[in-house]
Amino acid sequence: MSLFQKYLNLRLRTVELCKHISPEDCNLQADDFVSPPKWHLAHTTWFFEEFILKPKKGYKVFNDNFSFLFNSYYNTIGERVPRNRRGMITRPFFDEILQYRAHVDEAIINLEDKLSNEDKTLLELGLNHEEQHQELLVTDMKYNFSFNPTYPKFTVDCKENITESHEKNWIKITKGIYKIGHQNDGFCFDNELGVHSVFVHDYEISNKLITNKEYLSFIENGGYENFNLWLDEGWAWVKDSNAEMPLYWKKIEGDYKYFTTNGLKNIEWDAPVCHINYYEASAFAEWKKMRLPTEFEWEIASGKLNFGLRWEWTNSAYLAYPNFNKEPGAVGEYNGKFMINQMVLRGSSIGTPENHSRSTYRNFFHPSGQWQFSGLRLVQK
Amino acid sequence: MSLFQKYLNLRLRTVELCKHISPEDCNLQADDFVSPPKWHLAHTTWFFEEFILKPKKGYKVFNDNFSFLFNSYYNTIGERVPRNRRGMITRPFFDEILQYRAHVDEAIINLEDKLSNEDKTLLELGLNHEEQHQELLVTDMKYNFSFNPTYPKFTVDCKENITESHEKNWIKITKGIYKIGHQNDGFCFDNELGVHSVFVHDYEISNKLITNKEYLSFIENGGYENFNLWLDEGWAWVKDSNAEMPLYWKKIEGDYKYFTTNGLKNIEWDAPVCHINYYEASAFAEWKKMRLPTEFEWEIASGKLNFGLRWEWTNSAYLAYPNFNKEPGAVGEYNGKFMINQMVLRGSSIGTPENHSRSTYRNFFHPSGQWQFSGLRLVQK
Amino acid sequence: MSLFQKYLNLRLRTVELCKHISPEDCNLQADDFVSPPKWHLAHTTWFFEEFILKPKKGYKVFNDNFSFLFNSYYNTIGERVPRNRRGMITRPFFDEILQYRAHVDEAIINLEDKLSNEDKTLLELGLNHEEQHQELLVTDMKYNFSFNPTYPKFTVDCKENITESHEKNWIKITKGIYKIGHQNDGFCFDNELGVHSVFVHDYEISNKLITNKEYLSFIENGGYENFNLWLDEGWAWVKDSNAEMPLYWKKIEGDYKYFTTNGLKNIEWDAPVCHINYYEASAFAEWKKMRLPTEFEWEIASGKLNFGLRWEWTNSAYLAYPNFNKEPGAVGEYNGKFMINQMVLRGSSIGTPENHSRSTYRNFFHPSGQWQFSGLRLVQK
Amino acid sequence: MSLFQKYLNLRLRTVELCKHISPEDCNLQADDFVSPPKWHLAHTTWFFEEFILKPKKGYKVFNDNFSFLFNSYYNTIGERVPRNRRGMITRPFFDEILQYRAHVDEAIINLEDKLSNEDKTLLELGLNHEEQHQELLVTDMKYNFSFNPTYPKFTVDCKENITESHEKNWIKITKGIYKIGHQNDGFCFDNELGVHSVFVHDYEISNKLITNKEYLSFIENGGYENFNLWLDEGWAWVKDSNAEMPLYWKKIEGDYKYFTTNGLKNIEWDAPVCHINYYEASAFAEWKKMRLPTEFEWEIASGKLNFGLRWEWTNSAYLAYPNFNKEPGAVGEYNGKFMINQMVLRGSSIGTPENHSRSTYRNFFHPSGQWQFSGLRLVQK
Repeated sequence: MSLFQKYLNLRLRTVELCKHISPEDCNLQADDFVSPPKWHLAHTTWFFEEFILKPKKGYKVFNDNFSFLFNSYYNTIGERVPRNRRGMITRPFFDEILQYRAHVDEAIINLEDKLSNEDKTLLELGLNHEEQHQELLVTDMKYNFSFNPTYPKFTVDCKENITESHEKNWIKITKGIYKIGHQNDGFCFDNELGVHSVFVHDYEISNKLITNKEYLSFIENGGYENFNLWLDEGWAWVKDSNAEMPLYWKKIEGDYKYFTTNGLKNIEWDAPVCHINYYEASAFAEWKKMRLPTEFEWEIASGKLNFGLRWEWTNSAYLAYPNFNKEPGAVGEYNGKFMINQMVLRGSSIGTPENHSRSTYRNFFHPSGQWQFSGLRLVQK
Repeated sequence: MSLFQKYLNLRLRTVELCKHISPEDCNLQADDFVSPPKWHLAHTTWFFEEFILKPKKGYKVFNDNFSFLFNSYYNTIGERVPRNRRGMITRPFFDEILQYRAHVDEAIINLEDKLSNEDKTLLELGLNHEEQHQELLVTDMKYNFSFNPTYPKFTVDCKENITESHEKNWIKITKGIYKIGHQNDGFCFDNELGVHSVFVHDYEISNKLITNKEYLSFIENGGYENFNLWLDEGWAWVKDSNAEMPLYWKKIEGDYKYFTTNGLKNIEWDAPVCHINYYEASAFAEWKKMRLPTEFEWEIASGKLNFGLRWEWTNSAYLAYPNFNKEPGAVGEYNGKFMINQMVLRGSSIGTPENHSRSTYRNFFHPSGQWQFSGLRLVQK
Repeated sequence: MSLFQKYLNLRLRTVELCKHISPEDCNLQADDFVSPPKWHLAHTTWFFEEFILKPKKGYKVFNDNFSFLFNSYYNTIGERVPRNRRGMITRPFFDEILQYRAHVDEAIINLEDKLSNEDKTLLELGLNHEEQHQELLVTDMKYNFSFNPTYPKFTVDCKENITESHEKNWIKITKGIYKIGHQNDGFCFDNELGVHSVFVHDYEISNKLITNKEYLSFIENGGYENFNLWLDEGWAWVKDSNAEMPLYWKKIEGDYKYFTTNGLKNIEWDAPVCHINYYEASAFAEWKKMRLPTEFEWEIASGKLNFGLRWEWTNSAYLAYPNFNKEPGAVGEYNGKFMINQMVLRGSSIGTPENHSRSTYRNFFHPSGQWQFSGLRLVQK
Repeated sequence: MSLFQKYLNLRLRTVELCKHISPEDCNLQADDFVSPPKWHLAHTTWFFEEFILKPKKGYKVFNDNFSFLFNSYYNTIGERVPRNRRGMITRPFFDEILQYRAHVDEAIINLEDKLSNEDKTLLELGLNHEEQHQELLVTDMKYNFSFNPTYPKFTVDCKENITESHEKNWIKITKGIYKIGHQNDGFCFDNELGVHSVFVHDYEISNKLITNKEYLSFIENGGYENFNLWLDEGWAWVKDSNAEMPLYWKKIEGDYKYFTTNGLKNIEWDAPVCHINYYEASAFAEWKKMRLPTEFEWEIASGKLNFGLRWEWTNSAYLAYPNFNKEPGAVGEYNGKFMINQMVLRGSSIGTPENHSRSTYRNFFHPSGQWQFSGLRLVQK
């Protein structure tokens, strides 16, 4: 598949994801850390316009306001709508954003023969950027809808209850020096670069994610009431938020239910637990007298793991690899500046676009974040 | 005009006010103290359903969720969507709310012969309630759109720049005992009842509202920089909000502009100043070495005032009249429970529905509120 | 007693009030709205120095930093320590503040023959100012100590449990025009000036304050659980603060106890209820199907009331009398700028210095304030 | 020196540190994250009483309230005074705390022959715990006094301006596997245990800390205005706090001054920069196009470093070593539960007690913390 075919398919898929999202839904923003669907549609387009098209002679900007309206966090590009006010931008309308997408898509396609190597790099970055937003579009919308007591549905295929069918087993890894980081020619983000060696000791990692059933056992054994299992900030989070179960679990007339992208469902007990934050993952591991893998242990074992249902919390803080280099200009703001107070998640989830996944991928969120499709895998102590 | 004709006209007008509000706009809620247009459309309908239709045998509730979704603040009725989450209710959609309105309207019309006197009282209350929300619908939407840097328009007729053409004059009122409160047979709210006497001393009240031009002079003479003119909490408000001019005034490249319901405009200097809060009204009066009227002084003089362009801040706190009685049940929550920390505004504004105005009307807002069409009139000290 | 004798007695009494307050206690500040004892000692002294001594030729300022350190809220005088940081000023020490008091006292006494009339007015204002701070010194310290689980004592004579021994009765007042405001030659604050007439209707006011026993009955009848009795902001206060009883009541092993200035005590059930805020007073009155008096009704009846045990919440907002005039300069900041969002309390309390009380006195606090010796008296509806 | 001699010397030193802190100063708490001197004196004593003395038959608790009053964060032990209310505990007085110390010291000394091995371990832990609080006592007090505009002094010997006299040089470390963690018989905290191997690549680390002069150059070259140098949360911190220079630097009439434990001083430009947080350290490194060492790189090079003037920010998050084990009971709450959202600092500072320092020591603070004696050392990229 050519780069342009890939471009068109991928761009189409983003719109497809909004198939069940009405114009009324498209500006929903329930909290600072989520964005409205329309904003995702526009911002991903803005990326191509800003970084690839604008520098081109003859390109006609679709709308001068959009640079201000749909910049996310690039200080290099300039001022922008405050993050917590994205939901206020009901105008331009959904339709106009679709036109904006068409305008930019056409301009990109017309570049066909004029793409420099740098352009190609930026185009690929833009596609991977859009894939990230495809997943965020789903998780953000799920979060937004969770404040509506009518439990709206917005995707038809709910893969959230898929289970892992293989037997539980411990994979043994022998101590030694291993190479970490992206080593082939395929695309990767800058935070995966800088191949380097790490030494790990012997360890055993589970070939299965923790299931809802196992997590229920943690709940029923008083997991949320025993401070001894929790990090200090985790315990403060439990107290402040009155947490008693994963996000989106509801106890209704004695039964546990689960709010999915396809509405309220029974919990599939054999499916991997989902929507837990780092504090919960860490407390669960403590309860099991085991631990989370480091991101290096995870990467080293990844060839033997059947990952892809849940982003997996690791016990590694999101920090720079040796020789990490910020690129000059706005693209340099992509990853590096977030390397503080966040934990690395590895793998991918049922919300991750196909092929947007690899064993060196470093996802990251604050330890309190629950709204991603996040779960956990244990390592024996 | 019969009560039912009035009902239908008024109900239609609410929808008309949303003519330029798209489904995308209809859930906008920029702050806790404003509500989305769709919510106004639904809540006013809920009022008729809850108080008149539900007690009727045979009435089929349109949707069981709506009691929860569209209750505003009636504890008697039960739980409800938190005030600051109204904008999250994108479903039911705008169209369904219009159907809800039609469903309730039909049921009300079909009551024609079966209306008890109590029903008629509630119907009239419901209509006046809806008139209040008509004005809020406009002021809330103006506030919501003010966070969009593209200055959207949503009404065609902008009456905000209407001026008072009469000569400025001082109306003298002689000291004595006057009757206060609603005395005729027409509708009024419970907070206007309890006709009672007050004694006022001689005073002189202006027959004109303060204009933008006069207010500009306050600004240019350092009004927002001189603590001596402000109440202590007013000065704290100036410092915290960096206030320098009325809400919706913008200084753009040296010129003052004004954001109206019809987009960004030049300021009409002879029009009455608008969107000032009590702190600003009070500081302006101090600067002029005059004062605001009490609500009693305003009511006594009202026969000689040509009011109707701006809600006028008075120097009276919103408190109960002697013999004020809360009605039993949910209707009793309408007014009385808000009688603290708010100031009375008298008159009406260019946003007030025709005939929803009388000399005894007591509007009230917190002293920091700016988003109503509020202005001021002075009394000589 | 000469003005200077009065001065010396009164100044001494302030220090006496700190008899049981150690240097360690003297900087306690548990919240923004209370001040440390040392600050009260210094600020009252600062008042005399700033307004009377500094303008005098030859006066040597005790310490140049004190103007910054001990100004309360006078913008006219200049910058100052932020209100919530007063407890940080452990240096200068307690002893130095006592020297400061001696220095200023000596300078004031030496003025004996040189006092202008304006000086005398300021001196009298300063003494009344200090009397106000004497009461605050006690109520603030009680509040500060309430965060210490060992229930410290700091006054020996605890008058908090004094009861009213007379029979309960309703005093009837006939409707008519009455004069309000300070009418004799004695001292009063500017907010009592501007004698004016008000008309009141017939009313009956209790000759007794509500007792702890009556208030207990309100509690036991679900007063704190019935939203119908509360103002909207009052109900929000109940929910946010988990209020279940007056401030300083403690339910310990099933018994009610009461934290006094002399440590933890049993509740004297016949004593007037204390430390309730306006929301609680208003809810209690609603429960009794009665109401609070206005400040005018209170003042008119005051000749027949045996007041003095509790500051009594009225149903009047703290606003300017007709013809209220702010004095020029810093003294003008004394009262007028606080005339918003506060309710008037009348009478005086067991914490008020002798003679610092009169029927026209207007005390004022925010409706949520509980830490004054505040109670209530009812009027029949 | 015997354990008991060490005990007595060390206990005495804590009191010595308070030599210039008066009873008035001893309850100062300017923010949640600092504690008052008296609290440090009592809490360190509480540690010995709670963990060693209380389990002993016949030990008479000094005061039953103290377990509640002076517990810091040990949930295992029970409830406690909220962290931000420690400054409220003016009673018991300073003197009583000194008696408490004497009471506990006597009881400890009397244990002489009865000390079990576990007791000895706890005693040593208690001593190291107290050494940590000795440093906090100084840094907290400096912070507390910084809100007093009179710049109080409280230590006589100000070592803050000591400079490093050696030539600047780059120490080369060769790639390889190195052992990390505490390997000898001496005391260490649990977080240093679990000796393990890490692989590091070649690197060059400076033999000198960054000086005030170098940091000034960062400031003067617009370091605090260039978002490109900062982590995203660091830049938010700069904007929110209006940061322009290190904590305690003051620009007074054009000159930089520095608030020390001995009052306001000129800045010693050759001394290592102090009181910067991780964000500032990271931005400075970015500006220099270098980086901070990881805690492993620091430990490996430590034998060649002349450390001890500043705690040195590393680029390592505070996380568990492989095989880290929480001890059972309250002692297990010492370190492990803080392993989130904090960064490791290595070395020690001019505030660290002598001998309370070693190359494996892992100190940790939140990235925004500035009030420790913290500086930075660079690694070449």
